[in-house]
Amino acid sequence: GLRTLAADLHEADTGDLLETLEAEDRGAFIRLLGEDFDYTALTEIDEAVRLQLLEHLPKEVIAEGLGDLDSDDAVYILEDLHEDDQAAILEELPYADRAQLQKALDYPEDSAGRRMQTEFIAVAQYWTVGQTIDYMREARDLPDSFYEIYVVDPAFKLLGSVHLDKILRTKRNEKVASVMEETRQAVLATEDQEEVARRFERYNLVSSAVVDENERLVGVLTVDDIVDVIQEEAEEDLRALAGVGDEEISDTVMTIAGSRLTWLVVNLGTAILASVVIALFENTIEAMVALAVLMPIVASMGGNAGTQTMTVAVRGIATQELSARNLVRVLNREILVSLLNGVALALLIGLTAWLWFDNIGLGIVIGGAIIINMLFAGLSGLLIPIVLDRMNVDPAIASSVFVTTVTDVIGFFAFLGIAALWFQLPL
Amino acid sequence: GLRTLAADLHEADTGDLLETLEAEDRGAFIRLLGEDFDYTALTEIDEAVRLQLLEHLPKEVIAEGLGDLDSDDAVYILEDLHEDDQAAILEELPYADRAQLQKALDYPEDSAGRRMQTEFIAVAQYWTVGQTIDYMREARDLPDSFYEIYVVDPAFKLLGSVHLDKILRTKRNEKVASVMEETRQAVLATEDQEEVARRFERYNLVSSAVVDENERLVGVLTVDDIVDVIQEEAEEDLRALAGVGDEEISDTVMTIAGSRLTWLVVNLGTAILASVVIALFENTIEAMVALAVLMPIVASMGGNAGTQTMTVAVRGIATQELSARNLVRVLNREILVSLLNGVALALLIGLTAWLWFDNIGLGIVIGGAIIINMLFAGLSGLLIPIVLDRMNVDPAIASSVFVTTVTDVIGFFAFLGIAALWFQLPL
Ligand SMILES: [Mg+2]
Ligand SMILES: [Mg+2]
Ligand SMILES: [Mg+2]
Ligand SMILES: [Mg+2]
Ligand SMILES: [Mg+2]
Ligand SMILES: [Mg+2]
Ligand SMILES: [Mg+2]
Ligand SMILES: [Mg+2]
Ligand SMILES: [Mg+2]
Ligand SMILES: [Mg+2]
Ligand SMILES: [Mg+2]
Ligand SMILES: [Mg+2]
Ligand SMILES: [Mg+2]
Repeated sequence: GLRTLAADLHEADTGDLLETLEAEDRGAFIRLLGEDFDYTALTEIDEAVRLQLLEHLPKEVIAEGLGDLDSDDAVYILEDLHEDDQAAILEELPYADRAQLQKALDYPEDSAGRRMQTEFIAVAQYWTVGQTIDYMREARDLPDSFYEIYVVDPAFKLLGSVHLDKILRTKRNEKVASVMEETRQAVLATEDQEEVARRFERYNLVSSAVVDENERLVGVLTVDDIVDVIQEEAEEDLRALAGVGDEEISDTVMTIAGSRLTWLVVNLGTAILASVVIALFENTIEAMVALAVLMPIVASMGGNAGTQTMTVAVRGIATQELSARNLVRVLNREILVSLLNGVALALLIGLTAWLWFDNIGLGIVIGGAIIINMLFAGLSGLLIPIVLDRMNVDPAIASSVFVTTVTDVIGFFAFLGIAALWFQLPL
Repeated sequence: GLRTLAADLHEADTGDLLETLEAEDRGAFIRLLGEDFDYTALTEIDEAVRLQLLEHLPKEVIAEGLGDLDSDDAVYILEDLHEDDQAAILEELPYADRAQLQKALDYPEDSAGRRMQTEFIAVAQYWTVGQTIDYMREARDLPDSFYEIYVVDPAFKLLGSVHLDKILRTKRNEKVASVMEETRQAVLATEDQEEVARRFERYNLVSSAVVDENERLVGVLTVDDIVDVIQEEAEEDLRALAGVGDEEISDTVMTIAGSRLTWLVVNLGTAILASVVIALFENTIEAMVALAVLMPIVASMGGNAGTQTMTVAVRGIATQELSARNLVRVLNREILVSLLNGVALALLIGLTAWLWFDNIGLGIVIGGAIIINMLFAGLSGLLIPIVLDRMNVDPAIASSVFVTTVTDVIGFFAFLGIAALWFQLPL
């Protein structure tokens, strides 16, 4: 019944099934399946669901389940647990497994060492292709799936790799060393996963060896896990720009409300600053209420234009397409684009204001303010992310508050200030 | 000299080199390298650079270069050219190549058929593993790299696939059919690349067969190209939300200005609508200018909260984590989050307004308006993307204009309207 059905499911589908179940049924489902439950499914579910589930399973059951997994999946499940829960589960594992997992957990969060699996195939350089194939036919503890094998020296220093298709195309009596690709620049275990993902993308890799500081082979990264990293990092930027943390669709009301509120309060600072600028011109507005009607247009156009530039800049920095090499060219272009669009919008909005309030001066004033604000929007949209990046602050998280502050403050100040001067209104 | 140096480079590095060169030197560089230039590098550069380069190379030189590529890379280069340029280049190719490329080009843009390569290894189900290995050792026209082989029936209908590691682990005399994984649900050539990418992610695929409407094997997708799709689609959403089209860092001032202006003009509509709402309350503002000072806070808080919810909703729709299945639960949660944060902000902002203008009524009015606007922000941030998606409009592109319209209009209307009632001000 259920057992054969569940055994037939892909881990991703089992994961979905788990997520669909009510919280209290999930543990029962896993206990019911017993040995047939593949713990890999836990790598495919929301963090919140996973933590809730692991809390309700006995430590030795979890340890038993993790023992069957590739080390990277076991680490992925363990890393989000409290340290004492981690320790309790690790204690239930055989020494060799425990040592390997502990070593991976000792690498920093989001490093290659955390994402790598310690199951891989390494052969000596004097082996032949035939020997290697025979070894793989006989060996019992091979990784679940693999795409290349590695060639190491007696000290386990990485020399190179051979793709499986290469092995299959080569005659049995050739030496592996003669068909291997030499390692140019191996991934270091301490390297950030985002950096590594960029290398996978750039060089179209399917797997990559990971070495320690002595260039010794310690693990292997595979593209399926890197795909998750790429997705995660792109989403992180998208969410950061909009001011949402890494909330999951399964998170509770309080978690979500709390994480979003922080951002809203920071932005409240920006909004109050804008209000302070407007307050400087209270008398001006009282003398000419049309200014209050039109002023949000100037701020909003600047905000939109600034966000456009900022988004391009943040992604350009993340993908390294924007760098010191082309900064001057991009900056010049940004200024031109801002001026061009500033003039176009100034004409459109100026004309609208003139016709609406039957006052050509108002059209000229708002047009001028639009051009000024568009220029500041372009400059701040490009330069703020770059400066933040130089200061080692994630530009995706911090840029938008600063950019909005610039476009709001400049927008209101330029419009109300020019109006006060042009119409000689009281301040 | 240059030749040996360039021959040693990875295609991605050659691509970077090409991008760094001045426009007029790029063609010379390719002509200088002659046969040693790997046209795969053209798949690794900006579209603008590629088009400029292809315009200046003779059609027969391009055809010669494309002839050496895997079909997917050739199609990737051809698809952005004008139809007559495409035809002229295809004409220079041998019949078999031309027919294959033309077939891929006939599939819709961004479909699996456009991204697949037509080079793959397919064997009959009665072959043994040994026969298959021998075939791969002898065959001359194998794909550049491959991760699995396919098993087909005499009519070329796809039966299943065998990963290379499985082949290497299996004894020579076993039948391939006995170790193959049966195809559950093959990728259709007409399927959208985004859909396919989701399947690669979900099931941790490294390659996948592509079949036509008769279930016959027509090509293969590999994960390195899918990684580009994932990256591209995530970026597309990010850019769409901020209103920037698919501009490249190398695009010209006019291209960029034009594509961004469209978005700004659409948003101008929103801004003017907000102004019309404010204009309804001209007399109210004239009677109490503090309202003009505070009103942008209400609109801006709503805009930020709406963008937060919208971003989560748009990504949830794209990754299919948000669906009819959990809509009611997510909607309820969104309402609670909006109310909670609405009350928190209302207290904070109400207190600020009270102390600033020494007017407790003003604090109560702005607090009420904030709660109302936050609720509309949460509702519109969630429901607008969902409704757009149901109407087959890309929610990433269109949502933010509508959400901002809601939060601006409701924000100004609620604040100024409640103020007019509370203080009995003229309308
Ligand atoms: Mg999932
Ligand atoms: Mg995690
Ligand atoms: Mg690539
Ligand atoms: Mg893995
Ligand atoms: Mg995985
Ligand atoms: Mg990160
Ligand atoms: Mg990042
Ligand atoms: Mg293209
Ligand atoms: Mg996956
Ligand atoms: Mg390819
Ligand atoms: Mg490629
Ligand atoms: Mg798309
Ligand atoms: Mg999309």
